Amino acid sequence: MSNAPPQTPPRIALTMGDPAGIGPELCLRALAAPEVRARCVPVLIGDVGVLRRVAAQTGLALEAPVCTFTDDEAMASAVAPLIVDCGAIDAASVHPGEIQAACGRAAYLYIETAVKACLDGRVAAMATAPIHKEALHLAGVPQPGHTEILAHLTGATNVCMMLASEEIIVSLVTIHVGLARVPRLVTAARIVEVAELTAAALRRMGRTEPRLTVCALNPHAGEGGLFGREDIEIIAPAVAQLRARGLRVEGPLAPDTAFVPARRQQTDAYIAMYHDQGLIPFKMLAFEHGVNITLGLPIVRTSVDHGTAFDLAWQGRASAASLIASLHWAARLSGVA
Amino acid sequence: MSNAPPQTPPRIALTMGDPAGIGPELCLRALAAPEVRARCVPVLIGDVGVLRRVAAQTGLALEAPVCTFTDDEAMASAVAPLIVDCGAIDAASVHPGEIQAACGRAAYLYIETAVKACLDGRVAAMATAPIHKEALHLAGVPQPGHTEILAHLTGATNVCMMLASEEIIVSLVTIHVGLARVPRLVTAARIVEVAELTAAALRRMGRTEPRLTVCALNPHAGEGGLFGREDIEIIAPAVAQLRARGLRVEGPLAPDTAFVPARRQQTDAYIAMYHDQGLIPFKMLAFEHGVNITLGLPIVRTSVDHGTAFDLAWQGRASAASLIASLHWAARLSGVA
Repeated sequence: MSNAPPQTPPRIALTMGDPAGIGPELCLRALAAPEVRARCVPVLIGDVGVLRRVAAQTGLALEAPVCTFTDDEAMASAVAPLIVDCGAIDAASVHPGEIQAACGRAAYLYIETAVKACLDGRVAAMATAPIHKEALHLAGVPQPGHTEILAHLTGATNVCMMLASEEIIVSLVTIHVGLARVPRLVTAARIVEVAELTAAALRRMGRTEPRLTVCALNPHAGEGGLFGREDIEIIAPAVAQLRARGLRVEGPLAPDTAFVPARRQQTDAYIAMYHDQGLIPFKMLAFEHGVNITLGLPIVRTSVDHGTAFDLAWQGRASAASLIASLHWAARLSGVA
Repeated sequence: MSNAPPQTPPRIALTMGDPAGIGPELCLRALAAPEVRARCVPVLIGDVGVLRRVAAQTGLALEAPVCTFTDDEAMASAVAPLIVDCGAIDAASVHPGEIQAACGRAAYLYIETAVKACLDGRVAAMATAPIHKEALHLAGVPQPGHTEILAHLTGATNVCMMLASEEIIVSLVTIHVGLARVPRLVTAARIVEVAELTAAALRRMGRTEPRLTVCALNPHAGEGGLFGREDIEIIAPAVAQLRARGLRVEGPLAPDTAFVPARRQQTDAYIAMYHDQGLIPFKMLAFEHGVNITLGLPIVRTSVDHGTAFDLAWQGRASAASLIASLHWAARLSGVA
């Protein structure tokens, strides 16, 4: 993490995402939201020309001073919402709802600018609006998504995805792979890594002795080996290792009972073995306001848990709940809110 | 299904389960429950000696006439709660909370008696209290659990497990296997079979055009094949087949969004590809009152969704909520309540 002194309230970089998606509208809504202004100083990194077009089309306000992306001093001293204009795209060329290489390139530049601001300590954290994988690809960006771009830009090697809401927090041992590949990718080393990254994030949020629940891979936690041996041979030893390091960890727990209300009350975060094991309960409890947090980076980064929603772009109908929650969690994780 | 005329209210056989578990206590509670008596005539099939010991130890009432298991006429004409004494075990020999061969044997005999009563039309359906797999095994019963015993006794070949509650209904394509084996066991034929059994059960409960949601196997429903091809090659064709047969089916749906509240409102039942995909959301929504229903039998059978809980046996502290719900669902499925 940055060595810069804590900022009160913290400045949080907010990337505009793909200009042709719902990102610009969400950012305008977030910038104007009283609950955002109460907790942090949002520094919106995007293109002011696009924001003006979206504001005009949706009737949303665009009320913040603008600086250029080279004005480090303005960013570093902001005490009220600020718009950083990257000049990354000709606003008139953007077709809302369409996959465009220029939009992918612009979205990448916003991320790059925000990462630099985080690493330099001008902002305390960053929150990201959604980008489009195909647009990035058309722009020649070799990384498929945010997580990989951020790992590349910061030199991080061991990252993991944590999903956060007031109701439930879940970190994933494996993420975007087919179910058939999951059992081979679940290793004790990876479980230990994800659990430790998660515990560290919880401590940053003030939970000094976080309680983790590690899910089993198989039904009934394998029923003594009858339904698979991974829980005995891989997950239980990982839990033992974590306990030996002083962490408060329960598991491997039968997945179907792990998420019942009584168990949730005893758990600060879950370690799920695969995408849907964690995401089914997470989205049931926090569908509209879930936040995606990348752990293992040298910077704090949060994100919406939805996509660019091209079908809703620039229409004034998108909900900024998840983006506002992202700013809130970024502030909490930056350790100063 | 039986050709016997509808019974109003329906007589439902209730098997006592393993005598050393919480089954006898739950049955006493269910027999006395006004909400049970309002909906059905419970016919408890067990051992009256065991019930007397449990009643004395827990302070619960034992207030129903008793007949022997050979008294077909008493069973067939019952209009008020009845206890059918199987004489299957010496009550004094039962050690609560212990695995005993004699208990496994007795539990099997209760099931056999109830199945016969269903097939003969003396009762409209059966609900089962929990049995213990090891006790069954010690008794020399070759089948590992209820479902297999019932399939054996009725000659059924294609059965499936449906979990029901007021909040959510889920049927499982694969059940008690390790996660690594799931992808190979998910076939279009099995999905079609499970979906049709489920639709038929819903129709028996009065839902003339049931709406089914079929879950994908992989995250994001495979993301166009990037995260596994099963959703494209196996599940989508199964859904197409079901639609061609006139069923209202959606899917394959990304598992993490399939169970959010808005989707649940549009769904009468889910078809889940594996145990925890269905059981995680089910137990989150219906932990205490879930019911396990075996579809594909020539009889109606429901069950508690928990085990014998030997640690709680004969103590007067067990909740009969799931068993009472089992009787309620048995009555609904028998088509006469």
